[in-house]
Amino acid sequence: MSIKDKVAIIGMGCTKFGENWDMGPDDMIIEAAHEAFEDAGIEAKDIQAAWLATQQWGDAGMPVAVALKLHEKPITRVENFCASGGDAIRNACFGIASGMYDMVLAIGFEKLKDWGLRGLPENPGSAHPVLNQSTTGPGIFALSATRYMHKYGIDRTPLAHIAVKNHHNGNLNPKAHFHRELTLEQVLKAPMIAKPFGLFDCCTVADGAAAAVLCRADMAKNFRDDYMLIKGVGLANSPKNNSPHFDYLGFPATVAAAKQAYEQAGIKEPFDEIDCADVHDCFTWTEISNYEDLGFCEKGEGWRFAMDGTTTLEGKLPVNMDGGLKCFGHPVGASGIRMHYEIWKQFQGKAGPRQIKNPKIGLTHVLGAVVSCVTVVGLP
Amino acid sequence: MSIKDKVAIIGMGCTKFGENWDMGPDDMIIEAAHEAFEDAGIEAKDIQAAWLATQQWGDAGMPVAVALKLHEKPITRVENFCASGGDAIRNACFGIASGMYDMVLAIGFEKLKDWGLRGLPENPGSAHPVLNQSTTGPGIFALSATRYMHKYGIDRTPLAHIAVKNHHNGNLNPKAHFHRELTLEQVLKAPMIAKPFGLFDCCTVADGAAAAVLCRADMAKNFRDDYMLIKGVGLANSPKNNSPHFDYLGFPATVAAAKQAYEQAGIKEPFDEIDCADVHDCFTWTEISNYEDLGFCEKGEGWRFAMDGTTTLEGKLPVNMDGGLKCFGHPVGASGIRMHYEIWKQFQGKAGPRQIKNPKIGLTHVLGAVVSCVTVVGLP
Repeated sequence: MSIKDKVAIIGMGCTKFGENWDMGPDDMIIEAAHEAFEDAGIEAKDIQAAWLATQQWGDAGMPVAVALKLHEKPITRVENFCASGGDAIRNACFGIASGMYDMVLAIGFEKLKDWGLRGLPENPGSAHPVLNQSTTGPGIFALSATRYMHKYGIDRTPLAHIAVKNHHNGNLNPKAHFHRELTLEQVLKAPMIAKPFGLFDCCTVADGAAAAVLCRADMAKNFRDDYMLIKGVGLANSPKNNSPHFDYLGFPATVAAAKQAYEQAGIKEPFDEIDCADVHDCFTWTEISNYEDLGFCEKGEGWRFAMDGTTTLEGKLPVNMDGGLKCFGHPVGASGIRMHYEIWKQFQGKAGPRQIKNPKIGLTHVLGAVVSCVTVVGLP
Repeated sequence: MSIKDKVAIIGMGCTKFGENWDMGPDDMIIEAAHEAFEDAGIEAKDIQAAWLATQQWGDAGMPVAVALKLHEKPITRVENFCASGGDAIRNACFGIASGMYDMVLAIGFEKLKDWGLRGLPENPGSAHPVLNQSTTGPGIFALSATRYMHKYGIDRTPLAHIAVKNHHNGNLNPKAHFHRELTLEQVLKAPMIAKPFGLFDCCTVADGAAAAVLCRADMAKNFRDDYMLIKGVGLANSPKNNSPHFDYLGFPATVAAAKQAYEQAGIKEPFDEIDCADVHDCFTWTEISNYEDLGFCEKGEGWRFAMDGTTTLEGKLPVNMDGGLKCFGHPVGASGIRMHYEIWKQFQGKAGPRQIKNPKIGLTHVLGAVVSCVTVVGLP
């Protein structure tokens, strides 16, 4: 009941995220994939199969087949709301661990800024679980944030600390969309979007692509010494959020997905054993809830981490070292793979001014409210 | 490079296909899945993960999570145009063969008749590879059929034989949408849709769902003796159909997917070694091309099979014993799994009046023009 240590990542790529007006989907796929190929020291022809994460593009595997000239190769499109990128990695792992393939590609992309008709903002009836309910992402997550703040007696300050932290980190990252430090005062005084979320409590929509080359773990050392092993991967689709039993204090899908990943990875004390994490900060409060849902602390205690610096670059457990969704925006299918890219760079000591100290176990987490995907990765 | 004999199907279910006005997606999912659960002798709670094939519903894994109450289980939505159902089976196989799961569900459904906005006919711009080109399915496939007929010097008669055969078979199948025998004359004189395709050369859109319970092959005998082993599974996404090099005489994706599946299954002479097949007869000519692309005969010879009875229920290699897309219609994500259902029933001798003699190796094939998925299945 585990694929622990059977699969390795040996190369990764990531475009700059944001408003990529000068790039089409093909351009972004090529840039992300070929950075990953070069990083791994392979060529496109070495890829035996691929998994594509995209929520926006109902084009099966074709965008990847065409852009990368993967003629007659098997490419599966995976769609799982905002968790699509993590689930593409997960299914790619199964493809390897099953013994079917030696080397595969997981890639995610989205072109949300200018493909209006098919982008989320202009197409609210197109099946997104949040926008489909005739409301907006901020509006839905605000309900939970409000309930949480009432229950645990906090104001908007802890949320604002998340924005300040992530914008500090993103400012150190050339691939992020936003490069500006924020002050607590700026965050708290920004225009209100959906109470309690002001402008800087919300992530943006964006364009972007990210890619990973995965191979059999026993082959990985032929390509590099500092490969990254998949220790555990969990996915959970939870109807609970839509049920009368939902308590609006956190995300059952994340709790369930983390439990799966931790059991496989042998993680018993996540806060002690995990060195860094990239998690789904679609809104500042979401990151606080994630701390709790991922078991870094008890429910109702996550806001303290936001206040006391636990999750800054210098803290005990740095979170969203790359700037997170807050600074990258959220091109849905790309985000989960972009998170792996950051852990990858951190493991290799290549994270530049945002480098943390000697991480060996990392976590990624993507959340689509009713679905969550968690991976635990580690150095060999 | 194979998952041969690692994964077994131990139960299957299938709704009636057609105009299911009285059923919503939930109803169809429940009916197909619970028939499969009962068939396997398991309960929903025994399912550890699921793969959902649907092209129409951009709702991630949620329709299955909600309908089957699979709380906190991992469910991946797979979308690969008309090959989605086959690819859900394929990915479910990887989930088992990887060692991650012991028992999983592959399920496909579509509600094309009355969910207009999200259905194919009313939403031509939504990314379908064919309809997206401002033309129709019949119009696109007609180009190839015309070229083929010119090149090999045939008229519409061999195509009509396919319609007659498949309607004969479907008439023997209570789960099919259409129950009527057709004569050659009726087919040839039917109103023209897109030359050379008349009304009865085309399959219809439809509602329907189909499901498979898969488990580790070494567990299968605990559930039944007549389980079905996955011998090989191939998927190919081919950009060639959209390129200037496309010869309009067949489908490179099918050739490539079949090659993968045959290599895994150890099939060298498909026509001699395969006992029955359910293939993608979206149009009558497509089935003829499939015979060739799947290696049952040489390119340009498939039309002879249509004429000489080779692929009838009494022939050497029966094809579309259940009536095929011609009688079931094509609820996209469901079709590939529905095909497995027919082989399953044939293997068990439960195909009633359409039962063929003692099949031991079967093939399924779904085709989305640019993507094809082929499985080879067999008795233990």
